[in-house]
Amino acid sequence: MPQQFKTVGLWGRLSEPSVSEPAKQVLAHLRKHRIRVFGATNGDATALPEGLTGVAETELAERVDLVVAIGGDGTLLHAARHVAMRGVPLLGINRGRLGFLTDISPEHMFDAIDAILAGNYLEEKRLMLNAQIADGSVHPRLVALNDVVLQKGETGRMLDFVTTVDGSYVNTHRGDGMIVATPTGSTAYALSCGGPIIQPNVDALVMVPICPHTLSDRPLVLKLTSSIEVRVETDAGSPAHVVCDGEPLGRIGSGEVLRIGLADETVTLLHPRDYNYYELLRSKLNWGRANRSDRPVPR
Amino acid sequence: MPQQFKTVGLWGRLSEPSVSEPAKQVLAHLRKHRIRVFGATNGDATALPEGLTGVAETELAERVDLVVAIGGDGTLLHAARHVAMRGVPLLGINRGRLGFLTDISPEHMFDAIDAILAGNYLEEKRLMLNAQIADGSVHPRLVALNDVVLQKGETGRMLDFVTTVDGSYVNTHRGDGMIVATPTGSTAYALSCGGPIIQPNVDALVMVPICPHTLSDRPLVLKLTSSIEVRVETDAGSPAHVVCDGEPLGRIGSGEVLRIGLADETVTLLHPRDYNYYELLRSKLNWGRANRSDRPVPR
Amino acid sequence: MPQQFKTVGLWGRLSEPSVSEPAKQVLAHLRKHRIRVFGATNGDATALPEGLTGVAETELAERVDLVVAIGGDGTLLHAARHVAMRGVPLLGINRGRLGFLTDISPEHMFDAIDAILAGNYLEEKRLMLNAQIADGSVHPRLVALNDVVLQKGETGRMLDFVTTVDGSYVNTHRGDGMIVATPTGSTAYALSCGGPIIQPNVDALVMVPICPHTLSDRPLVLKLTSSIEVRVETDAGSPAHVVCDGEPLGRIGSGEVLRIGLADETVTLLHPRDYNYYELLRSKLNWGRANRSDRPVPR
Amino acid sequence: MPQQFKTVGLWGRLSEPSVSEPAKQVLAHLRKHRIRVFGATNGDATALPEGLTGVAETELAERVDLVVAIGGDGTLLHAARHVAMRGVPLLGINRGRLGFLTDISPEHMFDAIDAILAGNYLEEKRLMLNAQIADGSVHPRLVALNDVVLQKGETGRMLDFVTTVDGSYVNTHRGDGMIVATPTGSTAYALSCGGPIIQPNVDALVMVPICPHTLSDRPLVLKLTSSIEVRVETDAGSPAHVVCDGEPLGRIGSGEVLRIGLADETVTLLHPRDYNYYELLRSKLNWGRANRSDRPVPR
Repeated sequence: MPQQFKTVGLWGRLSEPSVSEPAKQVLAHLRKHRIRVFGATNGDATALPEGLTGVAETELAERVDLVVAIGGDGTLLHAARHVAMRGVPLLGINRGRLGFLTDISPEHMFDAIDAILAGNYLEEKRLMLNAQIADGSVHPRLVALNDVVLQKGETGRMLDFVTTVDGSYVNTHRGDGMIVATPTGSTAYALSCGGPIIQPNVDALVMVPICPHTLSDRPLVLKLTSSIEVRVETDAGSPAHVVCDGEPLGRIGSGEVLRIGLADETVTLLHPRDYNYYELLRSKLNWGRANRSDRPVPR
Repeated sequence: MPQQFKTVGLWGRLSEPSVSEPAKQVLAHLRKHRIRVFGATNGDATALPEGLTGVAETELAERVDLVVAIGGDGTLLHAARHVAMRGVPLLGINRGRLGFLTDISPEHMFDAIDAILAGNYLEEKRLMLNAQIADGSVHPRLVALNDVVLQKGETGRMLDFVTTVDGSYVNTHRGDGMIVATPTGSTAYALSCGGPIIQPNVDALVMVPICPHTLSDRPLVLKLTSSIEVRVETDAGSPAHVVCDGEPLGRIGSGEVLRIGLADETVTLLHPRDYNYYELLRSKLNWGRANRSDRPVPR
Repeated sequence: MPQQFKTVGLWGRLSEPSVSEPAKQVLAHLRKHRIRVFGATNGDATALPEGLTGVAETELAERVDLVVAIGGDGTLLHAARHVAMRGVPLLGINRGRLGFLTDISPEHMFDAIDAILAGNYLEEKRLMLNAQIADGSVHPRLVALNDVVLQKGETGRMLDFVTTVDGSYVNTHRGDGMIVATPTGSTAYALSCGGPIIQPNVDALVMVPICPHTLSDRPLVLKLTSSIEVRVETDAGSPAHVVCDGEPLGRIGSGEVLRIGLADETVTLLHPRDYNYYELLRSKLNWGRANRSDRPVPR
Repeated sequence: MPQQFKTVGLWGRLSEPSVSEPAKQVLAHLRKHRIRVFGATNGDATALPEGLTGVAETELAERVDLVVAIGGDGTLLHAARHVAMRGVPLLGINRGRLGFLTDISPEHMFDAIDAILAGNYLEEKRLMLNAQIADGSVHPRLVALNDVVLQKGETGRMLDFVTTVDGSYVNTHRGDGMIVATPTGSTAYALSCGGPIIQPNVDALVMVPICPHTLSDRPLVLKLTSSIEVRVETDAGSPAHVVCDGEPLGRIGSGEVLRIGLADETVTLLHPRDYNYYELLRSKLNWGRANRSDRPVPR
C-alpha cells in the first residue's frame, strides 16, 4: 500500500545554482501541498534556500518520511548511505540528463511529485553491501549501494591480492584492484572495467577485477549472500584504498583483509509509474542508435 | 539421501580409442561391482566394447539410473539433452585435461566411481534453457544446458535483431548474433564473447551479444525465470542459425522470433566430495600463474 | 597538383529511392559543370536515371577519371574493389548519417563537388589487402580496403587455425575466426571484435581473433608489409568462409591456407578541405557525449 | 658489424639473493673472459658482490660499453632510462620465468654471454617516449621505454581530460586515466587495459584509455612521430599522477598539460640469435595451451 508522505527532506549541493534552482521550485511545490520540508545540511546551513529549515545530514532520516535528492547519481548515493538505516524512501531528481538513480528529469518533477504524494508510484527495494577492513585494530564499516572498490595506492604499482568467497579460495589476482558491485552498481564503475549489466531484480553480486594482469581474470557473478574476503598480499610500497560509493573507507596494506557482504540496510527508491529500466539503459548507453551505421533502426 | 545405482549407461564416442579405452576400464570396474551396464548407441552398435549391450541414445535414460559420460564437455552436453527429461544423474569423466562438466580425470575415475556407488558424492542440479523458433509453422524445441545461440548466416553480414524480456523491449542489436547462457554455459562460448563467469548457484541467465556493432551493447544478466524473445529484423540475405549446446535447432529469418526461457528439465551432475568449482576455474583459465610476470604467486 | 575531372562515374544502388534521388541531383549538378557522367551498372541498366548512360561496373574505371559513390560504406567498398586497379579516385556521398568512408552528407554534396571540380580538395591514399586461398587448384584472389575475414562454417563449431607472419609461427588459435584489417577497416568489423582504432596514416595491419577461446588471444598489430598465412587445422565439419570487404572469396577447409598481404592496388579517397578524421570518430562512436553522465563535456 | 665489448656494467637489485647469486656467476664468467666489470649502485655500494667496483647508476653508462640487467622487466626498464642517453646496449637476464625484456633465462646466460662477447647476437633498437608536464613552472621530463601513464589521484574519482594529436582535438575522456605506450610497452600495462599487442618493428604508438566511462572510448594506434597532449580538465579534487615506466614524473592538476612525443633517446637490446618474439608472446600469454579445452593443440 502506498505511503502518505507528510514530511520531506531535500538533499543536494544546494550551494550550486544548478541544484538550488530546482530545489527552490520543489520546495515551493511541496509547500503548496502543505508538506513540511527540511533541507539536509553538512554542518553549514547557509546554502539553504531562504525559509528552509536545515537538519544535519546524519539526522535528516529521523525527521522525514521521504527524501528528495536533487543532483546526479553521486548525490543520491550520498543520501542513500544516510537514509538506509532508517528505511526512508528516496526520490531522485536529475539536474540535467537522466541518471541511473536520479531518473526524474526537472521538466517532469512536479508531475512526479504530485503522483507520489497521491500514492501513485512504484517502490523498488535496492540491496546494499557492507564493507569492513579487518586490520586488527579499529574496524570502521561503510555501506554501499553501488560498489566497494579496492584500488592501488599512489605509486601506481600493481597490487597482489587474494580473494575468497564463503571461505573458499577463489584466485590470486594482480592488477589495479577489484570492484564488488551490486546490480545497482553494475552500470557504474564496474561497467567501465568490463563487468556485465545486472538487472536490479537479480539476486547477485559481481566481482570485477580492475585492469587485471592475467587476461583471463574476468568478472565473476556470485550469489547475493556471498561473504567475500580480499586479502592484500603485496601493496607495492603504498597501501591500497578502499572506497564505498566514492567515499573512502580506509587504507589497506599487505596482509590486511577487506570483508564484503550483504548489508542489513536497504534503500527504497520511488519511481513514477512509467519507469522503465531498459529505457534508462538505452538512453544512458546510447543503445539503438546504430552508432557506426547509416540505417534507420527499427523499433 | 544418496541414491543406490544398479544400472549404468555409458555415453561417449566409443569409436574413438581415447574414449573406448577408459570406457572398457569403467565397464570392467562397474561389473566387478555387479552393476548392470548399457552403452548408448546412435543407430550403430558396432563401436561398443565387446559384451556391452547397446541401447539407443533416445532410450537409454529409461533403462538406467546413472549415466557416465566419457569424453569432453561436448559429450556430456549431448548426453544431458537426452537424460534431462527423465532426471537421470550424470557423471562426467574426461579423456584428458579436465572439462568444466567432465570434471573427473581418468586417473581418478575408479575412486570416483567407487565413492559414488557407495553413496558418497555431491549432487548438483543444473538448470536448462528451453528454445523454440515460433515461425508460424512447425515449432520444434530444444533444451540447452550451456547456451542458446543465434548466429548470422552464411553471407557473414550482420544481423539486425530486437530483444524483449518478459514482454518489455530491451534493445535493437546489430552484430553477429546473441548468446543466452545459463551459469553452466557462462564459462563456454559466452566467455569468449565477453560475458561474465556466473557461479552455478546463482539464479540468473546472461544475454551476451556476439561482436556487437554498438560498442556499449554489453552482456546483460537477467533473472533465471525471464522470458526472452529475439526477433530477427533483417537477416541480410541468409537466415540466421539457432544452435542449442552445439546442436542446430533451425534457421530463423526476417520477422521470425526465437523464444528462450527456463526449461522444466534439469540436469543432475554428480561430483566427488572434493569437487571445487573455483579450482576448476583456476585450472581451466590458467589463473594464478601470474602469466606475464616473473614473481612467485602467493597462496 | 589537383587533378581536373572531366568524366565522372556515379556508383550506387540506383534502384533504391534513397540513392536515386541524390544521384539525380548530382547528375544534374555535374552536367551544369559540363562534366560527362556515366552510371555504373551491374548487368541491368534499367535502374539508371533517365538520360544517364550506363557502363558495366567492371569497365567504369576505364571510362571515367572520378567515381562518386552514393550510399553507405558498403557501396564505397564495392566501388573501391573495381576502381583500385586503375587508380581512379573516389568520392563518397552518404545517404543519411555519415559513414567512415562516405564522409560527405547530402546537404553538403554540391559544395563538395564544386570544390573538388575546382581542384580544391584533400587526396588520401588508402592501402588495400590482397587475399588468396592457396588450395592447390584454382587460386582466385580479391583485394580488400577494409578487411579479410576468416569465419567459421555453418555448424557454428569453433575453428582451429594456425597463423604465421613472414614465415614465423605466431599462434594456434581456436575460435570463430580471424580478421585481418587495414587501418581503414579498423573501425569496421575489427572494432566490434575488440581491435584497436588505427589511424589511416599508420603503416600497419591488425590481426583480430573473433571470439577466441583462449582469452589472452588478443589483437596483434603488424607491419604493413607483413605476409600473413592462416592455415585451417580443423574446420569442425564444415569449411570456413573467407570474405573480403563483405564479398565472398571462397571456402577453406582443413589443411588449406589463406594468404594475406599488402595489395599492389590502392584507393585514392577525395575529401573536402575541412575533412577531420577525429571528428568522424567522435561522431560515429558517440564520443564526448559523456554517456552515463550528467555533466556538460568541456571542449 | 657486431661490437666488441670490453667493459660491462651489472645492473640489478644486488641486495636480493635471487639477483645477487646469478650476478656473482655472471661476474666470474665475465672475468674469465678478461672483461672489466662495474656494478651499478644507487648511493650505497654495500650490496655489491665482493670485489666488484661500484659506479653510480647515473654514471654507469659513461664507463661501460654493455649493461647486463639481472632481474625482471622492471629492472631493465630502470636501467634503460639511464643508458638511453649514451646508447649503451642492454642485455636482460631474468631471475626466473622469462620477461618480455629480460629474455635470457639463468640456465642459458653463460651461452648467451659467450655468444655476445663473440659478436654473435641480434641487435634491436627500441624507441622511447618523452614526457613532460608543461605547468608553467619547472618542466621536468622523463623518457619511457614502455609507457607514460596518466592516472587518477587518491580520491579515486574519475578524471576528465582532453587529448590532442599534432594539435588536432581528438576526444574528451572521462575515466581512470590514459596510457601512451610504445610497441615495447604494448604487452605491459596497456594490454591489461584492453590495448592491442604491437610488434616492436611497427612504427606506432598506442593511446589506451584506462577504464573509460564512455564504452566506445577505445585504444587508438597513432604514428610513431605523433605529438600527444593530454590536458586535465577536472582532477576531481586531487591532482592526477604521471608515471613513466613506473617512475613518477609528477602530479598534474586541472588545466595542466602533459606532452608526450618520441624521444631522441633509444634503447638497444641485445638478444641471442634464436630470439623469437612470437615464442615470447606464446610463453608469456599462455597461448596455444587451448585453455578451456581438452584437445591436443596442433603445431
